[in-house]
Amino acid sequence: MMDPGFEAAVEAARKSLREGGIPIGAALVRDGEIVATGHNERVQQSDPIAHGEMSALRAAGRQKTYRDTTLYTTLAPCAMCTGTIIQFKIPRVVVGEAETFEGEFDLLRSRGVEITVLDDPRCKEMMTSFQHEHPELWAEDIAE
Amino acid sequence: MMDPGFEAAVEAARKSLREGGIPIGAALVRDGEIVATGHNERVQQSDPIAHGEMSALRAAGRQKTYRDTTLYTTLAPCAMCTGTIIQFKIPRVVVGEAETFEGEFDLLRSRGVEITVLDDPRCKEMMTSFQHEHPELWAEDIAE
Repeated sequence: MMDPGFEAAVEAARKSLREGGIPIGAALVRDGEIVATGHNERVQQSDPIAHGEMSALRAAGRQKTYRDTTLYTTLAPCAMCTGTIIQFKIPRVVVGEAETFEGEFDLLRSRGVEITVLDDPRCKEMMTSFQHEHPELWAEDIAE
Repeated sequence: MMDPGFEAAVEAARKSLREGGIPIGAALVRDGEIVATGHNERVQQSDPIAHGEMSALRAAGRQKTYRDTTLYTTLAPCAMCTGTIIQFKIPRVVVGEAETFEGEFDLLRSRGVEITVLDDPRCKEMMTSFQHEHPELWAEDIAE
């Protein structure tokens, strides 16, 4: 069964890819409603803090609370996005895949964040291709 | 002796306060040169991810590496900014004060980040006044 929040994250990643950017997308969801979506904007806006999750949270604007939200993302959250999830007290994260980048699941779990990994083949294919075609851009995005 | 990087962070915080925003500022410095400064922009841009440190990193744009940089900030970094410092592999953080907000020093140190706390009275005065005058805005900024 398709999850609209996750599908919105995948579509955001695809949009970024079409724009020549890094194909990682995210969506913030509350009560089944999509609050905002976002994608990586390192290439598009020369913005190094604009990972998919960060862009979705920026697009959501000021929120009274995040305790009733779920953050969907196509790829396992890095330390920046993990710290942000912790700081914003987002209780649940749904992750497309954690094979092409392992992220910071231990840190998330240590702060009580619930993680679901979908192991989505579309996400894996998108990132595997991207990492193969643009290794330097991928290295830059994770500061390696 | 005045440290130009730290003074730039303090000036950014003051600028934010003059604009009606949250008075927290930051500066990214490489080899004694200020790469970029930034301040909290929650109020000014309705941007919840724009803490001072994040704004400075955004303003710095794409960088090949951060391993040769120091991040100055007027206030102890929250979990978002801490995760970002870790992700970007910024080795040194100089903090104005950690009394009005304790931040995530343990997490930073556990990842090898060197922290210097200046215990600067100007920073403490600015944040103490702000927290007293705008408790709801401060609570929102740290998601409480």
